[in-house]
Amino acid sequence: MAETLIAVIGGNECEPIVASLATDIGRGIADMGGTLVCGGRGGVMESACKGAKERGGRTLGILPHSVSDANPFLDVVLPTDLGSARNGLIVQAASVVIAIGGGYGTLSEIALALKAGKTVIGLATWDIPGVLPVQTPNEALSQAAEVIARSALA
Amino acid sequence: MAETLIAVIGGNECEPIVASLATDIGRGIADMGGTLVCGGRGGVMESACKGAKERGGRTLGILPHSVSDANPFLDVVLPTDLGSARNGLIVQAASVVIAIGGGYGTLSEIALALKAGKTVIGLATWDIPGVLPVQTPNEALSQAAEVIARSALA
Amino acid sequence: MAETLIAVIGGNECEPIVASLATDIGRGIADMGGTLVCGGRGGVMESACKGAKERGGRTLGILPHSVSDANPFLDVVLPTDLGSARNGLIVQAASVVIAIGGGYGTLSEIALALKAGKTVIGLATWDIPGVLPVQTPNEALSQAAEVIARSALA
Amino acid sequence: MAETLIAVIGGNECEPIVASLATDIGRGIADMGGTLVCGGRGGVMESACKGAKERGGRTLGILPHSVSDANPFLDVVLPTDLGSARNGLIVQAASVVIAIGGGYGTLSEIALALKAGKTVIGLATWDIPGVLPVQTPNEALSQAAEVIARSALA
Repeated sequence: MAETLIAVIGGNECEPIVASLATDIGRGIADMGGTLVCGGRGGVMESACKGAKERGGRTLGILPHSVSDANPFLDVVLPTDLGSARNGLIVQAASVVIAIGGGYGTLSEIALALKAGKTVIGLATWDIPGVLPVQTPNEALSQAAEVIARSALA
Repeated sequence: MAETLIAVIGGNECEPIVASLATDIGRGIADMGGTLVCGGRGGVMESACKGAKERGGRTLGILPHSVSDANPFLDVVLPTDLGSARNGLIVQAASVVIAIGGGYGTLSEIALALKAGKTVIGLATWDIPGVLPVQTPNEALSQAAEVIARSALA
Repeated sequence: MAETLIAVIGGNECEPIVASLATDIGRGIADMGGTLVCGGRGGVMESACKGAKERGGRTLGILPHSVSDANPFLDVVLPTDLGSARNGLIVQAASVVIAIGGGYGTLSEIALALKAGKTVIGLATWDIPGVLPVQTPNEALSQAAEVIARSALA
Repeated sequence: MAETLIAVIGGNECEPIVASLATDIGRGIADMGGTLVCGGRGGVMESACKGAKERGGRTLGILPHSVSDANPFLDVVLPTDLGSARNGLIVQAASVVIAIGGGYGTLSEIALALKAGKTVIGLATWDIPGVLPVQTPNEALSQAAEVIARSALA
């Protein structure tokens, strides 16, 4: 059976406090046996991947352009040369999406995820109707686990 | 010299009042000599194209999939088979973007446009920081004209 | 009714003799009332667009990345930031495809065109089963006209 | 360090003899510790993935549209909704590309791979200048191993 992908979306640069949230999310995804999929770059993406690798999890990065942008915590590096058009790929592949902080790129991913009918869990991110806001990484992870359990039963 | 493209983004279905705003925008774009670029489908896109063609303007539709989704007011029909990944194409091509109403697809286009540094003028649409809100089609058109004039001088 | 698009595909750099063939093709496309769609860059694309504009035709360039690559004979400039993934867009939009010379990029476009069921007319280009080889621009243009007439009747 | 991806490209349907070649290739990729990346569908792709999973290897499928096209031997399923534009993603991600049989879709992937400067090893496939023709799966695998070794030293 194919791996369960959990997307983490957020900015290529971020404050230390946001990075710390992302690392906690990454650890939790690994602990629940999920594969972390993200945009493969720095900031929130790198911090989340770092957390996942600390716990022996798997990571997949879908990059906008060349592999030189890849963070060092990726198991699978997919350079796309699609620019922002790769944003949709990240969320389409995921069973559930966790947004952490982020700017307009993250907002586009949230919008595309909601359009595709995905659950988007939001931690300190855009306040968009349809996003499930949470206060802590733990809350985000337990919501994500619930979505995955529900879809496994469906 | 290449034509000046003005993007109109909005939902594939819309209320009559929103359609009427879109038609006014389309007429205005034609009157100012711009080429209207949009997603090529129904709703806001079709109403805007209809307005543009009433005034002898030019229209270009960048479709998510096949030509069968094209509205009848397009001069140039570009089927992409890229799904939502075509959203970025619409805004990248434009000198200025006018958002009218819309759902998550429109939100993704607004986000991608702002990320690409485009001016986004919003009429009865998402209230996102960076969007220039206007109250009437006339106000939207004069703001658009100003952006184009400014970039012509730059 | 939407314009009939005719794609011209070929290299970003080319020999003068190939450029001259491309210019003849561009003139002919304009003369038959078609809109020329291409990758928007130099070489075969630029020479064809130049021919089309000499005869008052219309031209549309679908660029791999930024507008700075655009040749000066384009009416509509579509920057895509999709890299080579924009190759499929050029051929999907066209009623018929004319390949002139070209390297691997052109070969990918020929393949995608044939896969999409398009007629590909080849002038001094890849000898691929399915491509209709011709010896002169005039022969290419009359074959193209025939394809368009046939599809208009279908 | 990121996994070494080896692309297997070929048709969605194939003769039993071609399927058997693909399975041998898949087994060999797993045996050399590579991750198999492909278009994720049937035919050559499915046969290669089956071989890789028999030997405990890892597989990644980059699908043109929905997950419902995925073959059952994929560890990671990436639906793209990009249609044929996903062809470039498969080859861009790979350290080396092995083409087996195939039609126009495979030809477009060969062309995009060669354009991107990738080594393409061909087994009973298109005879295109630049493709390295081999006669057996073993020969393909040893050529692939050599390319990877060379790029690791570079």
